[in-house]
Amino acid sequence: MLPIKNYIDAKKWLKEQGLKQFNSDTVTQTVKEIIFNVRQNKDAALFAYTKQFDGCDINAQNIRLTQEEIINAVKQVPSNILAAMRRAKDNIITYHKRQLPKNDFTADMQTGFIYRPVTRAGIYVPGGKAAYPSSVLMCALPAVVAGVQEIVMVTPPGKYLNPLTIAAAYECGVHEIYRVGGAQAIAALAYGTESIKRVDVITGPGNIYVTTAKKEVYGSVGIDMLAGPSEILIVADNSANPEYVAADLLGQAEHDELAQSILLTTDKQLALKVNDELIKCLEKSPRKEIARVSLKNNGAIVLCENLEQTAELCNLIAPEHLEICVTEYEKLLKKVVNAGAVFLGNYSPESLGDYYAGTNHVLPTGGTARFSSGLGVDTYVKRIGIVNYSSRELKAAANDIILLAETEELFAHAESIKVRIKK
Amino acid sequence: MLPIKNYIDAKKWLKEQGLKQFNSDTVTQTVKEIIFNVRQNKDAALFAYTKQFDGCDINAQNIRLTQEEIINAVKQVPSNILAAMRRAKDNIITYHKRQLPKNDFTADMQTGFIYRPVTRAGIYVPGGKAAYPSSVLMCALPAVVAGVQEIVMVTPPGKYLNPLTIAAAYECGVHEIYRVGGAQAIAALAYGTESIKRVDVITGPGNIYVTTAKKEVYGSVGIDMLAGPSEILIVADNSANPEYVAADLLGQAEHDELAQSILLTTDKQLALKVNDELIKCLEKSPRKEIARVSLKNNGAIVLCENLEQTAELCNLIAPEHLEICVTEYEKLLKKVVNAGAVFLGNYSPESLGDYYAGTNHVLPTGGTARFSSGLGVDTYVKRIGIVNYSSRELKAAANDIILLAETEELFAHAESIKVRIKK
Repeated sequence: MLPIKNYIDAKKWLKEQGLKQFNSDTVTQTVKEIIFNVRQNKDAALFAYTKQFDGCDINAQNIRLTQEEIINAVKQVPSNILAAMRRAKDNIITYHKRQLPKNDFTADMQTGFIYRPVTRAGIYVPGGKAAYPSSVLMCALPAVVAGVQEIVMVTPPGKYLNPLTIAAAYECGVHEIYRVGGAQAIAALAYGTESIKRVDVITGPGNIYVTTAKKEVYGSVGIDMLAGPSEILIVADNSANPEYVAADLLGQAEHDELAQSILLTTDKQLALKVNDELIKCLEKSPRKEIARVSLKNNGAIVLCENLEQTAELCNLIAPEHLEICVTEYEKLLKKVVNAGAVFLGNYSPESLGDYYAGTNHVLPTGGTARFSSGLGVDTYVKRIGIVNYSSRELKAAANDIILLAETEELFAHAESIKVRIKK
Repeated sequence: MLPIKNYIDAKKWLKEQGLKQFNSDTVTQTVKEIIFNVRQNKDAALFAYTKQFDGCDINAQNIRLTQEEIINAVKQVPSNILAAMRRAKDNIITYHKRQLPKNDFTADMQTGFIYRPVTRAGIYVPGGKAAYPSSVLMCALPAVVAGVQEIVMVTPPGKYLNPLTIAAAYECGVHEIYRVGGAQAIAALAYGTESIKRVDVITGPGNIYVTTAKKEVYGSVGIDMLAGPSEILIVADNSANPEYVAADLLGQAEHDELAQSILLTTDKQLALKVNDELIKCLEKSPRKEIARVSLKNNGAIVLCENLEQTAELCNLIAPEHLEICVTEYEKLLKKVVNAGAVFLGNYSPESLGDYYAGTNHVLPTGGTARFSSGLGVDTYVKRIGIVNYSSRELKAAANDIILLAETEELFAHAESIKVRIKK
């Protein structure tokens, strides 16, 4: 099923792959045009693109969902699903509250810092068959915890709006929902139109047009990340259960054909058993066509000699999801530097985090866990530094500041100090 | 000197200005070519561009400064400047240590999170006359505090390398210094060449080519921000000293012609006095030509009726630097949502923070304080979420997870749970 590589070959293979860089050159030109047009012509452009790309007529009257439409969508969702969603929501809120930063300034301090939420956040939610209500919770709830006053959701109009995503938004207390998607929705959120007020931060996954648009507007507005195909890396030894490992590799592979599933193991027997299980599971999978391509193109099992080698390869891959199923998990975790999220032990599968445990599932992909974190409360919060010196304290520091400013030939900077100490 | 506007006019003026958006279209094509070429031809391209743009011959032997070259540069810096730099360094380290995030996970927890520094950081330092050793401290020391193992600096080669920036790097313990600048240096840091290993995060200010290059490589590497012209907003009432206010407005205006200096005040007498002082100070300023253009094009004094109006305009502007010189400063600070850094009272001028107090001076400009923070320890640190359930705990959650996964038609996600609870 999956090709089995040794450590040396795998390292070479991974280095050749290099960084699976986000590359949008082919669509950049189209996206730039869309953004330019929406900035210039606002609603008119937004409505025209929605007609062109989604085949839907929207206008100033119907672009925003009414309270009645929202309630009707919620009513279509079975109560057991709503109840499960609410329990997931509680866990997500509890977890993210632990991320809330604390102000570190009181009036008696020389320096300190305080935190402020952004005022208005926009969440992109893909439409059509890839509608994931769980992503609505993951994007909206950290904003709620951060104290964002206005949370806005945009989602492309199709034949119908997915009641599950609408219900998820309703449960989170999203304040406005607009039926608009694609690069044009990102442009509207970034710059504002007559119907949609601009936001401060845009979060949420989308297709290549949406991701390219997010990169283009970055700098005029904050964004969470540039998301690529999903990945899992499982590190397992003989304490792992091959059936579980196979199920989790397949869980990743079913996402899409570009998804990546890799197993690193110190146990050759496990490698062989996982491969056997994968063949069995794949046959039963309703999404087997997608998963087969994904496993074939991007999957691998790598035999390592020891945990050091697995840690090294893990940090080289910087996986979005890392499952650690080894006896000495604490030792390995200490060596893990690059990963989006970690799942420890045989009973913490990725899907537990995707839906329920409370950790965020909007995570860095394509090796970007080298330098970035998953979505969190900090996505919606800013830190503001504070300087608060007394006359006496400034006097004590004055000579140093004047010297350093004059060294940089910024004489008025020095003068700011001199006028304050001249008496 | 500065035009005096009322609140209504100022609000209109500010809204018309809109977001001073980072716009790089004119140079984007050039920068894309440079990046493409450096990715393809690595050192060869890097050396050729340095010959073309900086007129300097660099090669694999001399691109990296030797320890001897570094020590020689440090020796050229007068000891009183080194001593002042070291005291600033101590303050910056002390302040940033308070930003160090704490791990929130122990083996008995269901969920938690841990922090890891990036492995390798690259700092861009502009060359020529705009060489600011203080920016080296501000970029490097948060990385030191974060625990980054490899800190690299790049700076364009000129007739000579500025000994002050080299000395600042040496004082911070920067591990490698390369004489290369411009978009080609950013490309080398992002993708690596034979001489320069790629980094995980690039920080530091630069010209429009450097900033455009940072935007282009963003996503393949982390960046601190896209920096624009510097700004100050001063809110003052009759308790403020007009001489101090004028000095600080001028301190900003001398940076460059695009810099912005705005005063909001509830006191018309103060407005008139500040204008008088500005005229006097400007005449004495060695950089008066730059400052005059800056004040004329981008400066203003706005008369407000009360503190509420000043807070509203402040949040609309989202200034990089905010000086609060009013009696009821605590009341005003509570209402401030958008600002890069705040300077409280008559004895906390911006230059105190620029050089010495310990807060970071790499701050969001152009209204981006709406959604982003200044450079900090978090620029170099990632958060990793952890899920750690027991068999019993997973069993209790299983039905919800299976239901939610199947609702999203991700059947293998549901299967991951089912295989673990079937006994």
